[in-house]
Amino acid sequence: MDDKLMLMIPGPTPVPEQVLLALAKHPIGHRSGDFGKLMAEVTANLKWLHQTQNDVLILAASGTGAMEAGIINFLSPGDLVLVGCNGKFGDRWAEVSQAYGLTVEKITAEWGQALDPEQFRERLEADSQKQIKAVIITHSETSTGVMNDLETINRYVKAHGEALIIVDTVTSLGAYNVPMDAWGLDVVASGSQKGYMLPPGLGFVAVGPKAWEAYATAKLPRFYLDLGKYRKDAAKNTTPFTPPVNMFFALQVALRMMQAEGLENIFARHQRLTTATRAAIKALGLPLFAPDAAASPAITAVAPDRVDAEQIRSVMKKRYDIALAGGQDHLKGKIFRIGHLGFVGDRDLLAALAALEATLQELGYEGFTPGSGVAAAAKIFANS
Amino acid sequence: MDDKLMLMIPGPTPVPEQVLLALAKHPIGHRSGDFGKLMAEVTANLKWLHQTQNDVLILAASGTGAMEAGIINFLSPGDLVLVGCNGKFGDRWAEVSQAYGLTVEKITAEWGQALDPEQFRERLEADSQKQIKAVIITHSETSTGVMNDLETINRYVKAHGEALIIVDTVTSLGAYNVPMDAWGLDVVASGSQKGYMLPPGLGFVAVGPKAWEAYATAKLPRFYLDLGKYRKDAAKNTTPFTPPVNMFFALQVALRMMQAEGLENIFARHQRLTTATRAAIKALGLPLFAPDAAASPAITAVAPDRVDAEQIRSVMKKRYDIALAGGQDHLKGKIFRIGHLGFVGDRDLLAALAALEATLQELGYEGFTPGSGVAAAAKIFANS
Repeated sequence: MDDKLMLMIPGPTPVPEQVLLALAKHPIGHRSGDFGKLMAEVTANLKWLHQTQNDVLILAASGTGAMEAGIINFLSPGDLVLVGCNGKFGDRWAEVSQAYGLTVEKITAEWGQALDPEQFRERLEADSQKQIKAVIITHSETSTGVMNDLETINRYVKAHGEALIIVDTVTSLGAYNVPMDAWGLDVVASGSQKGYMLPPGLGFVAVGPKAWEAYATAKLPRFYLDLGKYRKDAAKNTTPFTPPVNMFFALQVALRMMQAEGLENIFARHQRLTTATRAAIKALGLPLFAPDAAASPAITAVAPDRVDAEQIRSVMKKRYDIALAGGQDHLKGKIFRIGHLGFVGDRDLLAALAALEATLQELGYEGFTPGSGVAAAAKIFANS
Repeated sequence: MDDKLMLMIPGPTPVPEQVLLALAKHPIGHRSGDFGKLMAEVTANLKWLHQTQNDVLILAASGTGAMEAGIINFLSPGDLVLVGCNGKFGDRWAEVSQAYGLTVEKITAEWGQALDPEQFRERLEADSQKQIKAVIITHSETSTGVMNDLETINRYVKAHGEALIIVDTVTSLGAYNVPMDAWGLDVVASGSQKGYMLPPGLGFVAVGPKAWEAYATAKLPRFYLDLGKYRKDAAKNTTPFTPPVNMFFALQVALRMMQAEGLENIFARHQRLTTATRAAIKALGLPLFAPDAAASPAITAVAPDRVDAEQIRSVMKKRYDIALAGGQDHLKGKIFRIGHLGFVGDRDLLAALAALEATLQELGYEGFTPGSGVAAAAKIFANS
């Protein structure tokens, strides 16, 4: 049915009506006092969301642009960086680092498995010369639905003392607890079309004091992504380059909604949706791609073995108007991914699971008792 | 009055209602067939707008991000570039070039005056070793309302044979004739919040064959702004990084509106508004900042000598809900700027001029016959 699409992908995520309506307001001048007030409010609320007193800077860019800014502002050509690679996005941060002439050492895990924090500990402890300038980690690996153990890896980075920790929280921020100051994270990057409940178009980079120290001597070239310019102007509630004014209107509304719900409730909701999704998928006899211990709070990847992943996506889209994500790169056709990130409630998940059951029946898959997936999710909801 | 603001600044420019409503649509997945169709349509229409068969690439970035991409993709460290500097944006492109380690030679003119094409001719003719790799020009200098003679300067670049011409058309595209292919422009950059009639958030870079040749050996680092990635994906109607989906909805509507009006009509409207504005300002006895021969089709800067520019802006805003732009950098407080770019009609200009007259009366300025500004503009309208 036209205009009936329900997004259950990891981004763009569903956008609340009041956020969409804010987008449709007539723009104001970005050098006006009114924009300054808007900037002051969203900046304060972004700090709340990041649980930080540090700078949180707003870019007109995708999450990749934000993450690139988070890397290139704090390093110099030839610097050694340790990049965690267990999916498309970890690989991407290695590519960014290489494109800028950094020396990249990868710590890898199979796609679908979490990075092993012990490998980071060993490598960092062996670096007695303190050659490692940064450790770059994808917190929730969107391509596989795997959550990496940032808290533990970060502890090893802190023990090293020299390296910065630079984190892609694109699909964890606003879904899972990422207390920037309590953990002492140096650089935290994210994008609007995820937990923020906004369309794509804004990137965010939070920067701590140790990263600003590194900025002072960092030599990689940058201009549009020069975070020092954004910091200087943010102090005056303005931006160095024309900001996407309408996205700022929408950000203001979305952050107010998040504050009204409260961080603890947001995290609990995502945890509940994740647990319910996984219980349902197990009840349906479909293999989960990531282990329970490393389940992303934003996205659940499923690797069906007796039914075609792309056929499932096709029926879900055509008949039930539900968009699921496919696999990326070598996982194309091998997995499908259910997004439960941002403006997603229990009803949405039940609808998606019911439609998934109906789709499996239509495709002749016989490995499950009809109704068992929905029942398993409902049981989680009843107990939480 | 709340929500009554009328934008007569050089950007963001007024946005038509149907474009705003498109922004408020629920996003779709950017890896979907529906997005591919949208991308195909807007790409074709962008080529129409640029009067080109070349690639026109769409970035989630401001105009500065687009222009930076237009520079860094085609050059290598140390390359000599000739930058035309007669305002804030010309200076900015010199700064970008310096930030990336290019060797910058500036050709300057006073702010408020046009660049002298003969200086380009002389410097290019003297370069028998073909050391100059690019000439970087701001077509319409937004900070001063000056139009540079791109057509003539480009002819000298063509005679040189080696150098690329890289042009900031941020406030000329969609207002003035910039026939990319007919003139043989190599790189043309622009931003959404201008002639496009959109809010800020998208940058555009059109790239010709000679620039792509340079791309193949260009060595400046880039990833998010790597235009080769955008070109490769645009051929498949997709994007390398998550695109601002809702801005694409709006772009689709705005480009359809531009096509319905027609390029010739769009250019004629901007010419008419420019001529009428200048006739009115002269009738009011206020000094124009740029000479007639170098008048920007997007913006008219006024340098009042017997009345305070910031007071004019303040009364216009508070009493008449009209936003005018102030001066930038050393021109702050010395000029005000009237935007007549994008979704601006004859009625809007008459309203702004009538309010300007009323403001001058309120401020006790006696150098004009009340009504004479509006009358002068009306005379232009009557004869065109």
